Amino acid sequence: MKISDLGEFGLIHAIRKLSARRSDDVVIGIGDDAAALRSSPAALLLATTDMLIEGVHFDLSYTDFYSLGWKSAAVNLSDIAAMGGIPRFCLTSLAIPPHISVEQITEFYRGFNALLRTHKTILAGGDTCSSLSGLVISVTVLGEAKRKKVLPRSGARRGDKIFVTGTLGDSAAGMEFLRLRNSRGRTTRNKSPNIQTLKSPIAELVEKHLRPVPRVEWGKTIALAGCASAMIDISDGLSSDLIHLCEESGVGAHLFPDAVPLSESLQKSSSQLSEPPLHYALSGGEDYELLFTVPPARMKALESLNIPVAEIGVITTGKKTYLVDSAGDKTSLRPTGYNHFKGTGIARNAQCRSSA
Amino acid sequence: MKISDLGEFGLIHAIRKLSARRSDDVVIGIGDDAAALRSSPAALLLATTDMLIEGVHFDLSYTDFYSLGWKSAAVNLSDIAAMGGIPRFCLTSLAIPPHISVEQITEFYRGFNALLRTHKTILAGGDTCSSLSGLVISVTVLGEAKRKKVLPRSGARRGDKIFVTGTLGDSAAGMEFLRLRNSRGRTTRNKSPNIQTLKSPIAELVEKHLRPVPRVEWGKTIALAGCASAMIDISDGLSSDLIHLCEESGVGAHLFPDAVPLSESLQKSSSQLSEPPLHYALSGGEDYELLFTVPPARMKALESLNIPVAEIGVITTGKKTYLVDSAGDKTSLRPTGYNHFKGTGIARNAQCRSSA
Repeated sequence: MKISDLGEFGLIHAIRKLSARRSDDVVIGIGDDAAALRSSPAALLLATTDMLIEGVHFDLSYTDFYSLGWKSAAVNLSDIAAMGGIPRFCLTSLAIPPHISVEQITEFYRGFNALLRTHKTILAGGDTCSSLSGLVISVTVLGEAKRKKVLPRSGARRGDKIFVTGTLGDSAAGMEFLRLRNSRGRTTRNKSPNIQTLKSPIAELVEKHLRPVPRVEWGKTIALAGCASAMIDISDGLSSDLIHLCEESGVGAHLFPDAVPLSESLQKSSSQLSEPPLHYALSGGEDYELLFTVPPARMKALESLNIPVAEIGVITTGKKTYLVDSAGDKTSLRPTGYNHFKGTGIARNAQCRSSA
Repeated sequence: MKISDLGEFGLIHAIRKLSARRSDDVVIGIGDDAAALRSSPAALLLATTDMLIEGVHFDLSYTDFYSLGWKSAAVNLSDIAAMGGIPRFCLTSLAIPPHISVEQITEFYRGFNALLRTHKTILAGGDTCSSLSGLVISVTVLGEAKRKKVLPRSGARRGDKIFVTGTLGDSAAGMEFLRLRNSRGRTTRNKSPNIQTLKSPIAELVEKHLRPVPRVEWGKTIALAGCASAMIDISDGLSSDLIHLCEESGVGAHLFPDAVPLSESLQKSSSQLSEPPLHYALSGGEDYELLFTVPPARMKALESLNIPVAEIGVITTGKKTYLVDSAGDKTSLRPTGYNHFKGTGIARNAQCRSSA
């Protein structure tokens, strides 16, 4: 069905029905001028917003709408995770071009709400409007953190060890495979790739790109354990995000490339990729893993947690960041992750790269 | 200066400098994964978001960047006003096409911050990215309201009188003059129309379109006085917004067209407009005045307030809305205000109308 057959308010009604969830904490939800919400009086309020633009952040020729909804939620939930908080409420704004159908928007919200449900986060409002060019998605997530437990980027100090959760580079490698498949004419347009039934290493990388898992539980656990001094999520790429953390903390770092955790899937697929695996980890981004620093005195607290982490470097004085390999050779670490306007990093799609 | 010369993080740094304001309530502000904020423990949290798209909501050929920033803040502050709340914090996301300069974005934030300052609202975070087509602006405002004083759309009951603040239709008429001037080749592109020095009725209408004043103080005063049963701001147009309020309240209404408040400027300019003044009031939108309902028993509380309001109708049973003129003639009121996708209302610009 065309969205013009429903109209703006019919569409809002449909989204409201799809997203209806009862919570005593939503006093006024979708359909009013603003949402009215009960937050915990003792907590700090966390607020983050991210915009996803067709042709810049995603390409509908290889992203199905369920995954797009999932990912739009994931990138924002990941920002709350990076503060050590828990997500509570969410607002979405969609600018929708005429060629998008009601069914596609419904699929988007199915994916979006599926991930929200996992994290007990409630869609409480937003905005819908028409777009003359591509689809534009803006998501705001509100969360909470204990006042003394919130983890900024700015707390890293000399001697702190640098850790990362999970594995890096999978998402960017997955995108390369999607793009390759797309350029060979196998498009997934408007069709879910049915991720669950795929088992190959490549399929696992593709899944990590299309439906990343925000590390909300891990972030909260790390924050509550009091072991970390600073934290950031890896959205632009390890090199850039480590440099962001160092800049905000006023420190430098040594990053050990040989210690960067790479998945079995990425290593198994490396012969089919254009670059070595480490490239995707340093410059790829969209991993949505957590990068955090731990003072030596608090290492015991980290070790008691049941989270897959890898020690990948150490914070130094000065403001420079270096790659230091196992032979001790030192080279400057440059922010080769994604930078809008500069055109560095692995572009999110072909159009974007050509425009950079 | 080109934004590509600064890069994404240089731009964020510039916005941060422009918007730097100290507040004990912003524990972590611009530059981290999420903002960490102190809200009042006794209040309800209000959250609203609105997206403004180039070619749909605004046209850079007759909107200067200072006014665009001002208006982007105003439309969101108005939503907080419509709940009877006070705004506290704000997040912005901008998707910026390559042809926009650093100076233009700076102008945008000058206008944006000027209005925020008036309402002691602090920019605490956001997102910037590149756009392959037009400029996209998404703003989220967080506010607060006393738990028992928040004013939803859904509280109107039979017999309540319908009121509106200020005057209606000015913004839509102002846009028609801007468009007319534009079609005659007098463009204001990238140039502020220097509103303060213009005094003519047309200039006043144009100012109301470019730099609307959100009725934050009035909304708060009405809510705290406890006189209103429901409230909404007029963004789509009186006809549509009254119908929204009635739908949410499950009631009908009689609207008295002869009582709709029209400004002197609108009446004086009417010979130069394509439609009679009432058309702009009913279908124009972007007035950002407050429409609210008052039970007869609470009229005394309203009268004690020093706010310019006009009584324009009455809530009825049933779910139908009618225009009832001074002779008692009754015609159906249709939602002729703005509706994305349906193409009703006065389009925000020529492109949008043609696409509808």
